[in-house]
This record gives sequence, structure tokens and C-alpha cells, in this order.
Amino acid sequence: MAQLIDGRLVSKKICENLSDEILFLSKKPCLAVIIVGEDPASRIYVNLKRKKAQELGIKSIVEQMPTATSQQELLNKIEQLNNDNEVNAILVQLPLPSHIDTKAVLEKINPLKDVDCFHPYNMGRIATGTKPYVYPCTPKGIIRLLEYYNIPPQGKHAVVIGRSNIVGRPVAQMLLNENATVTICHSKTANLAEITKTADILISAVGQKNLVKPDMVKEGVVVIDVGMNRTDEGKLCGDVDFYGVEPKASFITPVPGGVGPMTICSLMQNTFDLYNIQYNS
Amino acid sequence: MAQLIDGRLVSKKICENLSDEILFLSKKPCLAVIIVGEDPASRIYVNLKRKKAQELGIKSIVEQMPTATSQQELLNKIEQLNNDNEVNAILVQLPLPSHIDTKAVLEKINPLKDVDCFHPYNMGRIATGTKPYVYPCTPKGIIRLLEYYNIPPQGKHAVVIGRSNIVGRPVAQMLLNENATVTICHSKTANLAEITKTADILISAVGQKNLVKPDMVKEGVVVIDVGMNRTDEGKLCGDVDFYGVEPKASFITPVPGGVGPMTICSLMQNTFDLYNIQYNS
Repeated sequence: MAQLIDGRLVSKKICENLSDEILFLSKKPCLAVIIVGEDPASRIYVNLKRKKAQELGIKSIVEQMPTATSQQELLNKIEQLNNDNEVNAILVQLPLPSHIDTKAVLEKINPLKDVDCFHPYNMGRIATGTKPYVYPCTPKGIIRLLEYYNIPPQGKHAVVIGRSNIVGRPVAQMLLNENATVTICHSKTANLAEITKTADILISAVGQKNLVKPDMVKEGVVVIDVGMNRTDEGKLCGDVDFYGVEPKASFITPVPGGVGPMTICSLMQNTFDLYNIQYNS
Repeated sequence: MAQLIDGRLVSKKICENLSDEILFLSKKPCLAVIIVGEDPASRIYVNLKRKKAQELGIKSIVEQMPTATSQQELLNKIEQLNNDNEVNAILVQLPLPSHIDTKAVLEKINPLKDVDCFHPYNMGRIATGTKPYVYPCTPKGIIRLLEYYNIPPQGKHAVVIGRSNIVGRPVAQMLLNENATVTICHSKTANLAEITKTADILISAVGQKNLVKPDMVKEGVVVIDVGMNRTDEGKLCGDVDFYGVEPKASFITPVPGGVGPMTICSLMQNTFDLYNIQYNS
């Protein structure tokens, strides 16, 4: 019987502290979100970010650009926001239309305003054990959940499934920096179960329902499920067979209500942190 | 009975090709090496690099600066070399005197002249699965040895012992980019042997003689020994108990004559590659 890791609770507390701090600022932090095209899911995400910012007293600017936007037009927009002293944080909503080179776009963001920490310079700081300006949102949320539930990664074997630049790769680096022994698995991994069975902390960030089954984990494992999938009935679910794995786990995140709420909360914290770095430097 | 991975042979072939290519260049590639202080080991390394460059037709400049050099003086020197069109590659010999912030110095090097690939921007490219201008020398040498002996990392479990920014961290990222399943172990790892026993490819980059013993590896393992240590008799040795482990391994690098010769060879290749990038851009 595992203890549930309640991301709603933890993110609520962090956001409350954040709004208290922002309340007393004469000038408010400002987050600029660029969205290119009409992708309905992206629009929903951007709206959630805008609403959460508003709720916390963070100013947000949404730059809606048409699908036909050229790469140069997008780069120019980023350049403009890089040079705008009123903007503390810049986020480019992904995915971008296929005619745009996403990496070139992310590299255009001033690392000092890189609220998602997707710029190679900031990723490189993490990869060399140096502090970046801010940490990527979902990995930061995961580390905060481990802190809140008093699960120190040091000396533990953390197994990460998935090697995306948004979750898998950075969270692996951050756990290494927290002195965990870290294994990264992915689609080319042979005998995934052999490795996941050795995990003290198992993080799945693949996006494949029922990927992690009870016979793939050991007793007492801490399970962090970053997956966001739908059951055949259309219900939201993660990568982990929750009802099968939960009895063997010591801690487990539900989906929804686990990592999800932490990500947007980290985004707001990052905006606030970049604001402070910029005004104190 | 393992096959020996002969770094002397492979590096000799690479260097021969390199000198052939350089022979026909009217303008030669130029490597600038900065050495601060009188550390005898550093002087030996710098001399080896200078001689190897000369041997291959690469121009080298050695900037010897006194131990008392201030950080700002060193940053100014790097700035000067960044702006010098005659210099294609810049290397700061480590370690630096303790009064100098090494990370600040490495970040000062123009990423386009960062021949060691220590700049966070270039490390971040590797950490996000993007090609940097050049790869760090020792990890690049290791990947080349695996290529030469036809040992594809894809799907293999690669275990890296050591998490330095010079070897452990980057080689782990590079093996991940080659589709290996990668585990990074270090001084805080609990039951190191449990993990190394699962390795198809085992890379030790710690600097501790007899760290890897026969009972820590499985039959058929590929062993890459990056250690550079001395036996009680003063003989050069690696991290691996060579005579104990060799019978269980399928491939193994000797020390000396394994990874060592590849590092300086990669440095020369990187200088040549940066030269080409700069002249073709």
C-alpha cells in the first residue's frame, strides 16, 4: 500500500507562497508566451498558463502567430522579446509547425529569459553540474515532489524511462547532481524490465499507457509517472499500471494529480526567479 | 581471452590521415594552448600536445602565464584569442590555480573555438542530442575505439563509473545518443558491483587502481579503462585489475596504450575540424 504523492497539494502550497511574494511587488513579473498555429491542445495549455499567471499576479503576454509564420519571423519576434525589458521570461509553446527548426528557435531565446530551460547553454549548465538560471519545469516539479515527501535521491538507483529534452534527459542529469546513481532507458533498451526491477526511484516519461507493469518493479519502489495518456474509455492515465503497481510501491504519483500540477507551478516559480535575477543583477 | 583494444594503432591511423589532409592546406590550422602556472604534469601534457601538433603540421601557440595571473588577465587573454582570426582552437590547460574560477574561464572561450568541448553551450548540445562543433577529446576517442572494433553501443547497457565533466558525463551522453542504455555510477553509488555486473560495455574513469575487479564484471563485457594511476612499483596502470578482468572480457583497453593515445589524437582532429568549420562558414 503506497503513499500517494499529491502534486495538487504540493503545487497549491508553492503557488500560495509565490502569490504572497508577488503581492508585495510594485512591479510584477512578466511571462511572454509565443504560440504559432492553431493546435487545439497547445491553445488549451497556453490558456492554462495564462490563467495561472493571472491568479498569481504574474503579468502574461500571449503572442499568437499564424501557422504560416516563417522561421525568420518567429526569430525576429523572440529577438524583440529578448530586448524588451518589460519581459522577464519567454516561452515558445511546442510543438512548432514542421517548417520551423525548433532547436534554432529555442537557441534564439536569451538564456537569462529561458523560462523552460531548453536553451543548450542552460541544459549544459545542468549537464556539467552547474546551476542554470532556472531548471526545466517538469523535472523541477519532480525534484520538488521528492523533497516534499522526504525522498533524498542520494545513493539511490534512479531509473528514468524516456530521453526527451523536456523530461527524461534533464531529470536524469538533475538526479545525478543530487548524487543518485542514474540509468536512462528508452525505446532501444533491451530487457527494460530487468533494469526497472533494480530501481529505487522509477520515473516514466514516455507517453505509453500500461508501459510499467507490476512485475517490472521491486517492492518499495518510488514511482513517478510523467505519462499523460487516455484509456480506451477516454479517461486520463499515465505510463504506469497504477492499480497493479501501487501495492508494491512505497510512494506513487497518481495521474492526474501527480506531476502534472507541478509543471505549471514550476513555470510560475521560474518566471518569478528570472524576474528576481534580472532585477538584482 | 579478450581482444586488446589498441589505442596506439587506431590513433596512429587517424593521425596519418589527418597529416595527409593537412599537408595539402596552404594555410595550416592553429591551436592556442594557455597554461597558467608551473605545474610539472601540465607542462608535460602541453609539451606533448605541442609536439603532436608540430608532427601533424598543425600550428601551435603556447601562452605561458604566471601562477599569479588574475582571473581577469586570463579572461582578457582568452578574449584576445577569441578575436584572433589566426587562431582556430583554444585550449586552457587544467587544473588552473585555485584563485581562478575554472567554469567562468571555460565559459569565456568562444564555443566555435572550444576544442575541448567544455563550454556549457557545447555540452548542452550533446545533452540535448544535437551535434556540438566538436566532441570532448577523451569521450570522442572512446567512441572511435568502439567504432573501429565494430562494437555498436545501440541497445547495449553501458555503465560509466565516474561523472567528471571531462569524461564520465559527456561519454554517458554520447553513448545515450548512440542508443545505448546508460547508467552513471560514482562515489555515492551503493553496490557498485551489482550494477557493473550488468554492463555490456563498462567504462571506468575514476583514477583509482584496482577499482574494477573480476567479480564485478560479466563474461563477454567490453572494458574501457580511462584511469591513469601508478602501481606501488611506479608503473602506469588504469582503474581495472587488468590481469584479473581480461580473461572474462571480450574486448579490453590496456593502460598504457588504450584510451590515452586517442585523447591527443582527438584534440588534433578537433583543431582540424574547427579550422574547417571556420573557413567554410
